[in-house]
Amino acid sequence: MGSAAVVLPSEHLYQQLADELSTQIEAGRLRPGERLPSVRRTSRQRGVSVSTVVQAYQLLEGRGLVEARPQSGHYVRPRPRLDLLEPRAPRVCTVPTRVSVQDQVARVYRAMRDPRVVPLGAAIMSPALLPTEKLSRIMASMARSAGPRGLAYEPPPGARELRRQLSRRSMVWGAPLAADEFVITVGAMEALSLAVRAVTHPGDAVAVESPAYYGMLQLLESLELRAFEVPTGANGMDLGALESALKQHRIRAVLTVTNFSNPSGALMPDDAKEALVHLLKKHEVPLIEDDIYGDLQHDGERPRPAKAWDTEGLVLLCGSFSKTLAPGLRVGFISPGRYQSQIEHLKFTYSVGTPTLPQLAVAEFLEGGGYEHHLRGVRRRLVTQVSSYRAAIAEFFPSGTRVSCPQGGHVLWVELPNGCDSTELARRALDAGIGIAEGTIFSARGRFRNFVRLNAGYPFDAGMEQALNTLGALASPR
Amino acid sequence: MGSAAVVLPSEHLYQQLADELSTQIEAGRLRPGERLPSVRRTSRQRGVSVSTVVQAYQLLEGRGLVEARPQSGHYVRPRPRLDLLEPRAPRVCTVPTRVSVQDQVARVYRAMRDPRVVPLGAAIMSPALLPTEKLSRIMASMARSAGPRGLAYEPPPGARELRRQLSRRSMVWGAPLAADEFVITVGAMEALSLAVRAVTHPGDAVAVESPAYYGMLQLLESLELRAFEVPTGANGMDLGALESALKQHRIRAVLTVTNFSNPSGALMPDDAKEALVHLLKKHEVPLIEDDIYGDLQHDGERPRPAKAWDTEGLVLLCGSFSKTLAPGLRVGFISPGRYQSQIEHLKFTYSVGTPTLPQLAVAEFLEGGGYEHHLRGVRRRLVTQVSSYRAAIAEFFPSGTRVSCPQGGHVLWVELPNGCDSTELARRALDAGIGIAEGTIFSARGRFRNFVRLNAGYPFDAGMEQALNTLGALASPR
Repeated sequence: MGSAAVVLPSEHLYQQLADELSTQIEAGRLRPGERLPSVRRTSRQRGVSVSTVVQAYQLLEGRGLVEARPQSGHYVRPRPRLDLLEPRAPRVCTVPTRVSVQDQVARVYRAMRDPRVVPLGAAIMSPALLPTEKLSRIMASMARSAGPRGLAYEPPPGARELRRQLSRRSMVWGAPLAADEFVITVGAMEALSLAVRAVTHPGDAVAVESPAYYGMLQLLESLELRAFEVPTGANGMDLGALESALKQHRIRAVLTVTNFSNPSGALMPDDAKEALVHLLKKHEVPLIEDDIYGDLQHDGERPRPAKAWDTEGLVLLCGSFSKTLAPGLRVGFISPGRYQSQIEHLKFTYSVGTPTLPQLAVAEFLEGGGYEHHLRGVRRRLVTQVSSYRAAIAEFFPSGTRVSCPQGGHVLWVELPNGCDSTELARRALDAGIGIAEGTIFSARGRFRNFVRLNAGYPFDAGMEQALNTLGALASPR
Repeated sequence: MGSAAVVLPSEHLYQQLADELSTQIEAGRLRPGERLPSVRRTSRQRGVSVSTVVQAYQLLEGRGLVEARPQSGHYVRPRPRLDLLEPRAPRVCTVPTRVSVQDQVARVYRAMRDPRVVPLGAAIMSPALLPTEKLSRIMASMARSAGPRGLAYEPPPGARELRRQLSRRSMVWGAPLAADEFVITVGAMEALSLAVRAVTHPGDAVAVESPAYYGMLQLLESLELRAFEVPTGANGMDLGALESALKQHRIRAVLTVTNFSNPSGALMPDDAKEALVHLLKKHEVPLIEDDIYGDLQHDGERPRPAKAWDTEGLVLLCGSFSKTLAPGLRVGFISPGRYQSQIEHLKFTYSVGTPTLPQLAVAEFLEGGGYEHHLRGVRRRLVTQVSSYRAAIAEFFPSGTRVSCPQGGHVLWVELPNGCDSTELARRALDAGIGIAEGTIFSARGRFRNFVRLNAGYPFDAGMEQALNTLGALASPR
């Protein structure tokens, strides 16, 4: 439970309301398919503000208990065969914390290098979903045609051809940026690392999601920064909690994945993105936005990055082609707004430049026009995969398990029944030849002990079904 | 002199012959303008092969003692107008200093990107000296043959093929290391950056050379470390000064280029390397050794890195193929001794992995066995280039100029007469289309105001001669 010092009164109210309605739903007093009273009516009945009710309903939506139907209202969601509820977001903000998750993470990435281990651990897509042949062909022809240039330094900001293509892509994102507003990096991770370095000093506090991608926590740890964990549900960071943190602590930067976050799958709605950018503008705090999964929506339009609302150059947008083309090319980028020259300088300082040929190959792939076509294929397959994995989890995992329902990307965030120790589970799973990522590595405070992240980036086949079956048995009380 | 193990007997012969002729020239027995006996005649007289004489004459040419005139023969060169003395090392150690050289360095690397600027600034070799065609061919064939693996993550420590080849190379260095004692990095700069991060905390003091490569100073600056500058002459760091610094300050690491340092050209003799390693062992201080120029000795055997004397795992040896194969591949490495697991972890944290295909391509190049042959060619050309650049400096630069006489690598450290402001000179040179690196960027304390570093990595042609002529005029008192 949060202390009053960090949680705003209104958060208590909407959380109380949401908790009460959750209980009614779980007890069956509000039945699947039933319509919740309208926002206005609940507001009158309870004597609370309309915005409190809106927030409570959003929270319920985030928890997977209700769904909003346009022009109609909020309805209790049908029960899945097992309870496939959304995992619960942590309720409490805490104090900024020194980070340490190194050893556990080392196990996850060691497992990733072992081809005999079932790849449910690291967040990677099967090469079968990637345009391997086409890219290899392009790399080969680039190596021949680029001549000396392909082997020469390409100092920051990086190859102009690629920055031009990124500028074109930024129209699709709904956040038009010029070629000169990009710096090419060694994947999104280097982009994040440069961004954090550019806007913080050792000892500073940085607000992160809770749960947060462990790579971000490791980054903060290695830079001797403190993580301030902001509860994150299906709609992204809890902005009320973030606002009170900004008022009470000297938060120097906010680090978040706005679209299909890892591990939560959270997608921040447009109005929340806009509100986030405005909030940070008010406090003059930079937003480091990781949009690495943005191209992987399962349906509909590509969601915009928060950068689309940035009028102050305060958003440092990071991304890469590791999730959509090839992780091993290590081609990422940052559009750092007002920090452009600092980022170019830091990039030069830490690695001089990004390897040249991979930049030229990605530019050529984008130029050729097959990228959108490729993405459509990937999206279709991810929809199938994610729903198959979810169904298998529903079938094999112990009663009381909850799982995220991401609208993009390929990771599932699974809340196991209380009492389940996911570190122990990860160890036993690895003994059985199955890699998973335990929940505690997604928190600087050892939260999420009964959570695991599962990668759904590989086609769901008989072997994968068997692995999830085994995992479910290992997770079940004996 | 080379040991029989790596240098063929015939190389001894041509060196002996060249040395003998050098002595005659320096003693005045062969006079400026005098023609050397023809190759054939010398061959008969001495009873050695024609190719031995050809090599000896080339070596003399490289040393700037003779010049070849087409269809005519070899002539003793006129004495340069100036005495080319070694620049003086700074005498004084000072207190650890916060570093800031950012803006000036930005100008150097911006100039590097402009093909119209004469490349005397950045320390890069002409692509003409690098095996561009062969490497491009290997990259192309690797891209085709490696398939999905070439595009997949290659997490730390990096591709085994390349680490095996490095292990083989380490025999040549005289510091045998196992494949598992390496981590592949994005060039030597990332290696240095990881090494410094692994052994320091913000605010710590690190001993560096004075003059030091500006990249190292920038690195310390960005990590909020303090630089302790140790005077460095032609034999490397002044170990007496370093020892007293270790006693008086809490030096957390020593950062040095043992072989052909940049910018000084310093080569630390074996006994000094051994003494350095022992000194640091006594104080339990890690040595971060940058051996990026180690393969580029102008003559004789490849010098050993200090790592060869490391029994405690306290030496973090960094290197790369940027200076000998292709800067744009960004393939470097570190052999971090007892810090192996920390370095692997940091590498994962900052950039996940090094791009895969470039690693495989370099491994293939090394495996093929052409690397030593290629290096021999590069070394011969560097001898000629460096001596031509030195001769031109002697001819065109103002009286009182001193210049280093490096035994390897391709940078010259030039001390201009007192009162010359190299920052002003760099500005005026750039206006004239010539890039140079001003002395002050090689110090955290603004030392070396009347020094410049000149890159001799490009063939000495008429355009280069003209540029050095212009530079000499700009540097001369008006």
